Amino acid sequence: MAGNTFGRLFKLTSFGESHGRGVGGIIEGVKPGLELDMDFIQKELDRRRPGQSKITTPRDEKDRVEFLSGVFEGKATGTPLAFAIWNKDQKSGDYDNLKDLYRPSHADYTYDAKYGIRDHRGGGRSSARETIARVVAGAIAKLMLKEIGAEIVGFVSQVGEIQMETIPEDLSLIESTPVRCPDLKVAEKMIDYIDNVRKDKDSVGGVVSCVIKNAPAGLGDPVFEKLHASLGQAMLSINAVKGFEYGMGFQAASMKGSQHNDEFFSENGAIKAKTNRSGGVQGGISNGEEIIFRVAFKPVATILKDQHTVDKSGKEVVMKAKGRHDPCVVPRAVPIVEAMAAMVMADAWLMNKTYH
Amino acid sequence: MAGNTFGRLFKLTSFGESHGRGVGGIIEGVKPGLELDMDFIQKELDRRRPGQSKITTPRDEKDRVEFLSGVFEGKATGTPLAFAIWNKDQKSGDYDNLKDLYRPSHADYTYDAKYGIRDHRGGGRSSARETIARVVAGAIAKLMLKEIGAEIVGFVSQVGEIQMETIPEDLSLIESTPVRCPDLKVAEKMIDYIDNVRKDKDSVGGVVSCVIKNAPAGLGDPVFEKLHASLGQAMLSINAVKGFEYGMGFQAASMKGSQHNDEFFSENGAIKAKTNRSGGVQGGISNGEEIIFRVAFKPVATILKDQHTVDKSGKEVVMKAKGRHDPCVVPRAVPIVEAMAAMVMADAWLMNKTYH
Amino acid sequence: MAGNTFGRLFKLTSFGESHGRGVGGIIEGVKPGLELDMDFIQKELDRRRPGQSKITTPRDEKDRVEFLSGVFEGKATGTPLAFAIWNKDQKSGDYDNLKDLYRPSHADYTYDAKYGIRDHRGGGRSSARETIARVVAGAIAKLMLKEIGAEIVGFVSQVGEIQMETIPEDLSLIESTPVRCPDLKVAEKMIDYIDNVRKDKDSVGGVVSCVIKNAPAGLGDPVFEKLHASLGQAMLSINAVKGFEYGMGFQAASMKGSQHNDEFFSENGAIKAKTNRSGGVQGGISNGEEIIFRVAFKPVATILKDQHTVDKSGKEVVMKAKGRHDPCVVPRAVPIVEAMAAMVMADAWLMNKTYH
Amino acid sequence: MAGNTFGRLFKLTSFGESHGRGVGGIIEGVKPGLELDMDFIQKELDRRRPGQSKITTPRDEKDRVEFLSGVFEGKATGTPLAFAIWNKDQKSGDYDNLKDLYRPSHADYTYDAKYGIRDHRGGGRSSARETIARVVAGAIAKLMLKEIGAEIVGFVSQVGEIQMETIPEDLSLIESTPVRCPDLKVAEKMIDYIDNVRKDKDSVGGVVSCVIKNAPAGLGDPVFEKLHASLGQAMLSINAVKGFEYGMGFQAASMKGSQHNDEFFSENGAIKAKTNRSGGVQGGISNGEEIIFRVAFKPVATILKDQHTVDKSGKEVVMKAKGRHDPCVVPRAVPIVEAMAAMVMADAWLMNKTYH
Repeated sequence: MAGNTFGRLFKLTSFGESHGRGVGGIIEGVKPGLELDMDFIQKELDRRRPGQSKITTPRDEKDRVEFLSGVFEGKATGTPLAFAIWNKDQKSGDYDNLKDLYRPSHADYTYDAKYGIRDHRGGGRSSARETIARVVAGAIAKLMLKEIGAEIVGFVSQVGEIQMETIPEDLSLIESTPVRCPDLKVAEKMIDYIDNVRKDKDSVGGVVSCVIKNAPAGLGDPVFEKLHASLGQAMLSINAVKGFEYGMGFQAASMKGSQHNDEFFSENGAIKAKTNRSGGVQGGISNGEEIIFRVAFKPVATILKDQHTVDKSGKEVVMKAKGRHDPCVVPRAVPIVEAMAAMVMADAWLMNKTYH
Repeated sequence: MAGNTFGRLFKLTSFGESHGRGVGGIIEGVKPGLELDMDFIQKELDRRRPGQSKITTPRDEKDRVEFLSGVFEGKATGTPLAFAIWNKDQKSGDYDNLKDLYRPSHADYTYDAKYGIRDHRGGGRSSARETIARVVAGAIAKLMLKEIGAEIVGFVSQVGEIQMETIPEDLSLIESTPVRCPDLKVAEKMIDYIDNVRKDKDSVGGVVSCVIKNAPAGLGDPVFEKLHASLGQAMLSINAVKGFEYGMGFQAASMKGSQHNDEFFSENGAIKAKTNRSGGVQGGISNGEEIIFRVAFKPVATILKDQHTVDKSGKEVVMKAKGRHDPCVVPRAVPIVEAMAAMVMADAWLMNKTYH
Repeated sequence: MAGNTFGRLFKLTSFGESHGRGVGGIIEGVKPGLELDMDFIQKELDRRRPGQSKITTPRDEKDRVEFLSGVFEGKATGTPLAFAIWNKDQKSGDYDNLKDLYRPSHADYTYDAKYGIRDHRGGGRSSARETIARVVAGAIAKLMLKEIGAEIVGFVSQVGEIQMETIPEDLSLIESTPVRCPDLKVAEKMIDYIDNVRKDKDSVGGVVSCVIKNAPAGLGDPVFEKLHASLGQAMLSINAVKGFEYGMGFQAASMKGSQHNDEFFSENGAIKAKTNRSGGVQGGISNGEEIIFRVAFKPVATILKDQHTVDKSGKEVVMKAKGRHDPCVVPRAVPIVEAMAAMVMADAWLMNKTYH
Repeated sequence: MAGNTFGRLFKLTSFGESHGRGVGGIIEGVKPGLELDMDFIQKELDRRRPGQSKITTPRDEKDRVEFLSGVFEGKATGTPLAFAIWNKDQKSGDYDNLKDLYRPSHADYTYDAKYGIRDHRGGGRSSARETIARVVAGAIAKLMLKEIGAEIVGFVSQVGEIQMETIPEDLSLIESTPVRCPDLKVAEKMIDYIDNVRKDKDSVGGVVSCVIKNAPAGLGDPVFEKLHASLGQAMLSINAVKGFEYGMGFQAASMKGSQHNDEFFSENGAIKAKTNRSGGVQGGISNGEEIIFRVAFKPVATILKDQHTVDKSGKEVVMKAKGRHDPCVVPRAVPIVEAMAAMVMADAWLMNKTYH
């Protein structure tokens, strides 16, 4: 209700601010008996971590997840899985200068407008540290989805003006480059591009693409909880996301029906589509093809250039930037996109069990 | 849970198929004592109706809403507002040839995959007739929103390859053209374009843009129910929608932070943004500026050209199209987009009342 | 949220007032392909109907359910099952004298306090006609539960000062007496008792007991949605219910642990309890024994004696009673109790499917 | 959905087992800016603690709550309030003998039937330690309710065969006796009674009564979420509860309408009821009178006598009891009953704000 819970049957209720005791959540709907592969969960968290390479911020957060309940002898018991990732760095004094400032395109002003009170340190609840809880829940959703073989693969398809032309068949190289682009030539260009942005004390946006392989047909609910509508809400709920499209997306607007329709054919008794402009979903329900979607990220609002803004009293101030910040968070967003997609898929799968 | 309810506090639970007894729903969260302006509600329904002009299908559905409960002496009582729009045309025999057919890019195959049973007549539950219930609920949400002055204005900004360059200041001409594009020169081109598509027995997609004026700052919830994430889910739940973006949307991906950030300033004691690249939402919460978003529609799947597909048994068939169909539903989608936006805003507003 | 929806996966959202167009609802979670036995559903409705015998009110409502969606060729399709029972008798003029009156122990005053507006005719939304929707949904839940063999049997165990000592083994005679008490000797006494209450122009309360047979072990969720807590909420939501207990209920308060505990034993490989003081539920989860609970009903507030009360303005008035009213609604409450129990069990069963 | 969340707008999602890392929860719906009186919250927890006197178990748990998020400078920020109470005593070896045992009238067997896996140590999730989270959330709900002046007072009205005849006017002495009975003479008898039960190595049940003072008229929702139905679910969700009644409760079943109805009168412009047999709720909505209800607790299942039972394999075993256990938990249940009532009232109050 108040926006802290995601999902219907596979559910994450998250908590935490960037500078409180920590961030974490409660996960429900985990299959009783599921082996919780702690190495895998930690690896997923590590993929989100800043400081993975020169193109990301060098702070080493080393986020370690601690499970507080719901695990017994390494297995999920079916009771709520609570977990926390404790905040290390609690020098809230660093943030005193931001106390009454409304940073441009940050959530400072809107939180004050909504709540009339706000933990200003590091963005508080609107900090991207909140996404840590999503990565943990998403990792567990991925473990659940192994039972049906579904696999979720995200990658960076655009950084600023650099973009991949097509999705390559081979997605195996994604993790071999810090920018998480499977086309290594494009990846090189992206890295250079980000490097120049950093030197300019600026930031830049990008696009994360995602492919869900081996999802069975029949997932998703009609009308308001169409599979792509749930994926859309999931992605748009990630910090800095400005757009979502699946299949042909916005390109479909300029297409004709005869160009866009996916004709069916039959192969060894299975019904398949000749093309996949639909992006694996028809009428809100998966059709057994690959589910493909794209997520647009704006440039992060924190930049190292001076900016004009106001404080709480309306007084105009020039904001002197300092510190170290990621010029492009898009590569680090890949595991978050995957995590949200995994949660949507696990939830749709559990929901489907109730029909049969 | 099963996808038939939208909203948390302002809620629509919808029902109905294209060829059952009718479509309708139950609306909850309507303010007790609200005058239900039946003329207005009917007018909204009329805007969705086919047969409004030569560019839409000539069938005259004349959908009339009947309220079944929750109204007393013209006012909402606070109890559930049930309503129905009865189906007229029940010649289900017309659809016998579609009984076992999986139409390309329709939901026939996926519904069968999900449920194992399906009302094949006219698309059943996946029919766009279902959106009638949304328009009724949206009309009531609009009546609710008058109290805070918020206004929702949708229009067609693209049809196929024809698009408006910028959003004009003056949106007053939208309803003066059947294509619902506020720039009448562009509207003319769109009408010609659609006419050619019809002659080609084809269909075409487009984009609906939407502006929400006078929304107060503070609406929307952080994290998973960010205002734009709810708008996104709402829009993506409309039939044929393939993408959603707000503010600079996908363009933001190629922008720098210094180009994208909206600096604040102070005017007569009020805090405002110099620019509105954020699209009226920051950190998931409205900032008092205009909320702006765009919704991409694919071309409708039903075209009058022959198509290759399979039936339930996997046998390949050539589908001979017949009947009369809209070549471009985008203009008719405008009231649906507005309705969903109105519901999201009414819900966010009610939610906010619980904080104060 | 606003109290009109019951259930999580097997869900009823109800609508309607006693004097609007009708009452009805939307049912979700019905298994796709379920045969909807219309005769059975109508029979359940008939059991709730007034005028079944001299001990109930002689009005003949003949409530007929009409399904509006979700059914195709006699089977549920998995899409929402909307239904309505149309109100016949709409002489709202009869109620003008009640317009501003606050009847003792009715909901007139509290609805005004809550909503500031109220459909005063026949109790409006607080009328017992609302329970018709529950009986329809409960009938469908019973049809669902056939798959696991679970059966729900309600009966009257107390009317005023007349009560059964013990639950008889043989419950086959319940429907053979209008008072729905399986012990025919006690039933005779109850009928005489009610007859005297009627002659006195008074009303009387009673108790409905209910046994759920063949419920598998493992149903119900821990903590807040314990099976008996859901049953309790369900029963307490029925008009005129003042108490709920299961197993030994309030008697357990005066018992010792050594008297109350149910020891387990093993029989042919199955684990069973020697006694069933727990009432078939332990830790909120069914243990495979019979689930037994009792529901206390107050006497209906409408009596044919004069009563003192006030109107909206606070003016004291003597309420002259008229018309024909049931002196004891408890026998007619039996199908409603069963319906709510069936919905709880169907919901718990669907929920359990998501664990395996 | 899975039973770990209570409430709609004022919400607790709880986690934790008796022998994991700890118990805790996430609270949502707390008013932004609310002063969190930590002393008060801790005092409420202390009231639940074992070892408060010779009649309770002498273990000194000293549960201290730690808030993990949602608090800034002593005030709630409106973001989720996560909290934990860490488990101290983790000698899980003590429980090895219970590993495969199904204790009579405990949840061991039913958890295994449901989940197929179970943390057997100390009852796991079914342990009464889980109620700690409720007391914390209830304390915060009480702080919220101060704004409307509503006050919740629970007390013990029955222990085994000892019961109070009537509710005394003066409830100020409740906390002056360890048995929490406001009539000190009856309290003495209860203490003696419990002492004898302990010497017998047995346990005993009882009743907690609760009065909600100064609740405004208009709280509660019609139909399925009637105020007393929510209270009933809340109470029945507490470990060991077997029954709930409000107003005249089960006694109402033997009353006549003319005896039970509460006539209204007018006093200084306010509408009041001459009597309060309704228990402060009519038609599911509070009427401004005191809300009164009673909750029946069974004797705790753990007793120090030998009992016959089976293990997981079905083998019959004699359970040798050991350790120290409360012979009567009813006095310690008082703060839990109050906590659940406070949450229900805070939730109903927030819900009501959305109507106006």
